[in-house]
Amino acid sequence: MYNHTELKDLVEKAITNLSYNTEAEKLIEPVKYILSIGGKRLRPVLTLMACNLFNDKIDDAIMPAAGIEVFHNFTLVHDDIMDQAPVRRSFPTVHYKWNVNQAVLSGDVMAFIANECFLQTPPRCLLNVFRVFNKAAMEVCVGQQLDMDFEKASIITEKEYLRMIELKTSVLLAASVKIGAIIGGAKDKDSDLLYEFGRNLGLAFQIQDDLLDIYGDAKVFGKIPGGDIISNKKTFLLVKAFELATGEQLKMLQEQFSEMEFDPEVKVKKVVDLYDHLDIRKATENLANDFIKTSFDLLDKIDVDRERKNELESVVSSLIGRDK
Amino acid sequence: MYNHTELKDLVEKAITNLSYNTEAEKLIEPVKYILSIGGKRLRPVLTLMACNLFNDKIDDAIMPAAGIEVFHNFTLVHDDIMDQAPVRRSFPTVHYKWNVNQAVLSGDVMAFIANECFLQTPPRCLLNVFRVFNKAAMEVCVGQQLDMDFEKASIITEKEYLRMIELKTSVLLAASVKIGAIIGGAKDKDSDLLYEFGRNLGLAFQIQDDLLDIYGDAKVFGKIPGGDIISNKKTFLLVKAFELATGEQLKMLQEQFSEMEFDPEVKVKKVVDLYDHLDIRKATENLANDFIKTSFDLLDKIDVDRERKNELESVVSSLIGRDK
Repeated sequence: MYNHTELKDLVEKAITNLSYNTEAEKLIEPVKYILSIGGKRLRPVLTLMACNLFNDKIDDAIMPAAGIEVFHNFTLVHDDIMDQAPVRRSFPTVHYKWNVNQAVLSGDVMAFIANECFLQTPPRCLLNVFRVFNKAAMEVCVGQQLDMDFEKASIITEKEYLRMIELKTSVLLAASVKIGAIIGGAKDKDSDLLYEFGRNLGLAFQIQDDLLDIYGDAKVFGKIPGGDIISNKKTFLLVKAFELATGEQLKMLQEQFSEMEFDPEVKVKKVVDLYDHLDIRKATENLANDFIKTSFDLLDKIDVDRERKNELESVVSSLIGRDK
Repeated sequence: MYNHTELKDLVEKAITNLSYNTEAEKLIEPVKYILSIGGKRLRPVLTLMACNLFNDKIDDAIMPAAGIEVFHNFTLVHDDIMDQAPVRRSFPTVHYKWNVNQAVLSGDVMAFIANECFLQTPPRCLLNVFRVFNKAAMEVCVGQQLDMDFEKASIITEKEYLRMIELKTSVLLAASVKIGAIIGGAKDKDSDLLYEFGRNLGLAFQIQDDLLDIYGDAKVFGKIPGGDIISNKKTFLLVKAFELATGEQLKMLQEQFSEMEFDPEVKVKKVVDLYDHLDIRKATENLANDFIKTSFDLLDKIDVDRERKNELESVVSSLIGRDK
């Protein structure tokens, strides 16, 4: 079986070797740029790991895995336009480095480069794999829409929030592992279990990400602490605080998130004090842990030898900050 | 065999019956809007006609045909953002009616709705059809990039211009008929001939479209005469004029297309006067006619009974303003 480092190398190599129509260089420059500034390559690595759970041969999964990464980066390029974000992974975003038109068009071509990768799936499972990918791709768009809608909504429920992050983040993770499983020759039951594993894991990751905005190490995560609070971003912490706050607390929250002019430090302090008072951190950690537990339970049920699951468990454990 | 009206009805029905993930209504509203404000449905109708050339049964081609139309409208939504166009087919453009973010995202989901349509291609030719579509989709992006690049270039050659419109316009028409042919069971030689037929036809259409900006009937085409001149758009006429103009003529052209402030009527008159002097209209018509002749010659070579080609010839003839 392959270890994490070997799989990441395979992914990097596949991405570096992608072939492009270079007739209009300006179209492809931003594509190469966004794909070169890294990230963990989590999704394609998980695709290969899922394939490797069921099969010692993983070559057939490499191009679809690259396709998932290209698609993921396509969504980042377009999301950054919509969010007017200047920075991604400590580098200027595409629309900021070039311009919005370039980011729209270079993003667009990435969607078809992703298709091109998926068209290299072995014919025996092409339709099945492409369907799983494309369903997730459409759902990611729905998730981004809900995220934009929620920005304008004053209050959203926990359920609405979870559904949004499920669509925006989890379904692609779920599809990544399911696609690997299908290509590896898993039984339907096992590829479905892996989908649910990925879905729960994605929810846990996103909720942990919300926590990191306030309780993370700024140097490690490269973000200003409380950035989500300053930008009025709906996070699980905020949704939970709105659910639990009463009377004066609720009034304060509503004020903080409706005022157009404010001192960022004061705003972050007031909101974090309330989070502390309402024990929001604990509630959030508990929920993330529930999703993590569910995902590990699902992995347990998959019908392959115990030791084949070690590498996947170890990678997931390190990502969620747990030593195995 | 089916006639044009029957095929257009089949296309309209397929588009009306497309199923969507409606969990985020705002995402799909612009999709339904752009698909409902019509257009000639030229590409999907040509797909069905090409299929019908080789096969009396065309059901298998209907969803891929719809996919081509959805893809085409996706490009319109995003192109209109890039061109800052307020009007499309006499209706407000998506980014103008909603906003740029909505047009980016609703456009994006259309790319995956198009995929969904193509995934309904019969398995016997899914890979072949999807490859033809996806190659064209990537080329359309390259064409749009060249178009944007050319806006900033002072002079482009006839060859560069023709390659740009080939990519931006013709390859999708070419793919539309090739896909129909493949699904209809055509031999490779015939589906390749149809591709070339569509490519030449697309070039002729675009060149005729350039002519219509000045010599068309404003009421029929819903555009201000000379709009392309006012907006400094590179058209075949302008490229040809730059090629043929000398001395004072060339100086005048350069001035007209570099001045930031001008009287639109004066600019259009000066440029059109030069076009007339240089016989640009005739040169342009001649080139369009060459492409039309080539496309009909290619159609002749296709190995099906003469009378099966009648409907396709008749539709093409009416589109190029020729009575058959």
